[in-house]
Amino acid sequence: MTNILILGAGRSATDLIDYLLHLAPQKDWKITVGDFDKELALQKVNGHSHGEAIFFNVNDEALVEKYVGNARIVASFLPAHMHIIVAKACLKHHAHMVTASYLTEDMKALDELAKAEGLILLNEMGADPGLDHMSAMLHIDAIKAAGGEIFSFKSYTGALIAPRSNDNPWGYKFTWAPLNVVLAGQGGTARYVRDNRFRYIPYHRLFSITDTVAVPGGYGTLEAYANRDSLPYRSKYGLEAVPTLIRGTLRLPGFCEAWQALVLLGLTDHSYLVEQADHFTRAQWLGAYLPYNRNPDLEVATADFLGVDTNSPLMDKLRYLDLFSQKPIKRKQATPAEILLDLLAEKWVFKPEDTDSLIMVHEFAYRLAGKTYLRKTGLAYEGKNHDHTAISQTVGWPAGIAIKLILEKTISTPGVHIPVEEEIYRPVLAELEELGIRFEEEERVAEGYMP
Amino acid sequence: MTNILILGAGRSATDLIDYLLHLAPQKDWKITVGDFDKELALQKVNGHSHGEAIFFNVNDEALVEKYVGNARIVASFLPAHMHIIVAKACLKHHAHMVTASYLTEDMKALDELAKAEGLILLNEMGADPGLDHMSAMLHIDAIKAAGGEIFSFKSYTGALIAPRSNDNPWGYKFTWAPLNVVLAGQGGTARYVRDNRFRYIPYHRLFSITDTVAVPGGYGTLEAYANRDSLPYRSKYGLEAVPTLIRGTLRLPGFCEAWQALVLLGLTDHSYLVEQADHFTRAQWLGAYLPYNRNPDLEVATADFLGVDTNSPLMDKLRYLDLFSQKPIKRKQATPAEILLDLLAEKWVFKPEDTDSLIMVHEFAYRLAGKTYLRKTGLAYEGKNHDHTAISQTVGWPAGIAIKLILEKTISTPGVHIPVEEEIYRPVLAELEELGIRFEEEERVAEGYMP
Repeated sequence: MTNILILGAGRSATDLIDYLLHLAPQKDWKITVGDFDKELALQKVNGHSHGEAIFFNVNDEALVEKYVGNARIVASFLPAHMHIIVAKACLKHHAHMVTASYLTEDMKALDELAKAEGLILLNEMGADPGLDHMSAMLHIDAIKAAGGEIFSFKSYTGALIAPRSNDNPWGYKFTWAPLNVVLAGQGGTARYVRDNRFRYIPYHRLFSITDTVAVPGGYGTLEAYANRDSLPYRSKYGLEAVPTLIRGTLRLPGFCEAWQALVLLGLTDHSYLVEQADHFTRAQWLGAYLPYNRNPDLEVATADFLGVDTNSPLMDKLRYLDLFSQKPIKRKQATPAEILLDLLAEKWVFKPEDTDSLIMVHEFAYRLAGKTYLRKTGLAYEGKNHDHTAISQTVGWPAGIAIKLILEKTISTPGVHIPVEEEIYRPVLAELEELGIRFEEEERVAEGYMP
Repeated sequence: MTNILILGAGRSATDLIDYLLHLAPQKDWKITVGDFDKELALQKVNGHSHGEAIFFNVNDEALVEKYVGNARIVASFLPAHMHIIVAKACLKHHAHMVTASYLTEDMKALDELAKAEGLILLNEMGADPGLDHMSAMLHIDAIKAAGGEIFSFKSYTGALIAPRSNDNPWGYKFTWAPLNVVLAGQGGTARYVRDNRFRYIPYHRLFSITDTVAVPGGYGTLEAYANRDSLPYRSKYGLEAVPTLIRGTLRLPGFCEAWQALVLLGLTDHSYLVEQADHFTRAQWLGAYLPYNRNPDLEVATADFLGVDTNSPLMDKLRYLDLFSQKPIKRKQATPAEILLDLLAEKWVFKPEDTDSLIMVHEFAYRLAGKTYLRKTGLAYEGKNHDHTAISQTVGWPAGIAIKLILEKTISTPGVHIPVEEEIYRPVLAELEELGIRFEEEERVAEGYMP
């Protein structure tokens, strides 16, 4: 039996666990699932003959030694800052590792050691990051191989709700880590390059600068805001000199405008505690962020400040959050982001009958034999149900497939990786397609295209 | 001889040193001035018979032991984070201490120890903080003693240039720590209370919300933006339930609007490095912060973004900084704030023939015997010359006077203090008046006054 250790049994690990358990009997695998909440691990293993649920605490060295020491490969779906502990244990005990999180400098520094040990530490092996890299590299490599010169690459991803579950004015629900949604963009100034010009977008303007993106699968046209720092992807994607490279995050039209209002007001701030927050009503709390306005009507004062009409779609979204109500704030001491999170969590409920979707769109503009081409590829993948979500499947399946391919030595180049190499992306994308994750493609001659 | 130790011989210590050296012969004091730059200490001591200049490094324990161990009182004019090291040495070696910096939690925690040792650790004993507290408490205590009930207190301070030295469109020059000017407001969300309503102002809007303040001494009307967190001053000033308390920082009209533009663009950010900054011209650098705009004229694109005319005073201020020029950025790697600082430092030069000014305005609204009164007190103090600046005198003299009064036991209550107590503020203000730092006062009945 080959031992596979999965650390973290949260929502995004559901389909990773199912995928591996499903293959375990024929492959002679034992799947050990560890979580700080053992009950959660037990639920996910669900009594499978080749599975075991354990209590796991990454800060308990004895547990790390015991379980990593026993594994041939480890999938870390723990909070991202914990991966490095697991990675070091993997190197010590000669186990491969897969994560769905962004590659960090700490992790990168293990490259030589991993190579010396013949081990693979594969990061960014989820949906975004993960599927975005793989589906991009398939085309980037193909266009280059045909002699094309890519001068613009835009890549957009969104974890959204399925159109049939869209029943609130924001067009959004919490289908994954809610606090991460509230803090999105606060990690640093967003950057990209457009038309050979660098663009820096401070957080306080991030949601005011959007691209419009046509999406397949009945989603119509969405909006995208800049996703972190796109600049390093020039070298990661082998597009060192590309004049335009933009990675963006998709939202339904109108979301960004309203979120920008929350940012502008200061309600997404996570850097200080609002003292005695439970002494405020929601209306008083919102009022504390408005410039002084003698108009006693808070809705009018807010609309004034935002420069919109009180009947605007933007104000509808704020009203929907009960921001103008006399309801109390529940927390005693909390950051504005945490108070906002409570309000959102009441409204953006991903209900049992809801399904989510993972949307991904790439646009490549390139020149070949004197012509300019625009190639678009798009994915609109809907989750199966409330548990087997698009997020869980598009994050868990790439990681699961990679684990299988590493054990089968189809993926065999040691070192610290992200899935931009053909050895990884080609077989993974092929199997994802069998599982139903299929991109639509179109290409046309597009003279005069401007990025 | 009584030994007085002054640590830090920078610009704001000039008049502290002069004040103490002047009194030293008659008081039988020895003034030791320590700085990391011994040459600077030598200049400031200027061969005075009762002075000594030494090399001082606060991180060299032997030096701290030697010089603090020998002192009866220490003035720390080092960078603020170093005060706590000095304070602990003072407690150990039984010396009093005076600083002109904001009281920190670390320092506050030494209160009991200081009391047990019979020592005074006096903080915020400069201009702002310092003179602002003292000149406010004089009136707060007087109004309360007369039976008045203060319902609004606004306090504004500005370190500016004298009107005759105002020769640039910003009405501002670097008369004190330049990087602190660029980073002003970035320490956290500004807060105050107005009309019993809390106000939180995120940094990205700080300079867009200004009060208009009439100032004595030919300065006309200035603008003020919110100065840090005003809320703790309710208890510090003995105004626990006051419905309005606002502390603000004064600038010449138009400055805040233009600084807000720099903030909005993202040019004051100090949280990340612009890589290969020296590959940018200034125009390219500015352009990187603008939303994409097909207009090739950067001035037009900038004015569009800011919603102003290209001929507006705001655009004049930006042009004055050569932001639209093809001049290179000099630094290889720097934060936006550091790059901006270089541009400003070329223009906001405090020239040898220039003088500065310290402006302070307090507005107290109170009810007494059925009437509403508005009392205003204002200071417009101009520096003597380029070295003996208003900043140096209004920071150094309060500290110097406090040192004298502590040694004379006029100020004698042990513990950690800021100058809000009568024992401190009354004699210090009296001597400051002798030195020429005089407030104008006016009071009128002001029924219907709204804060």
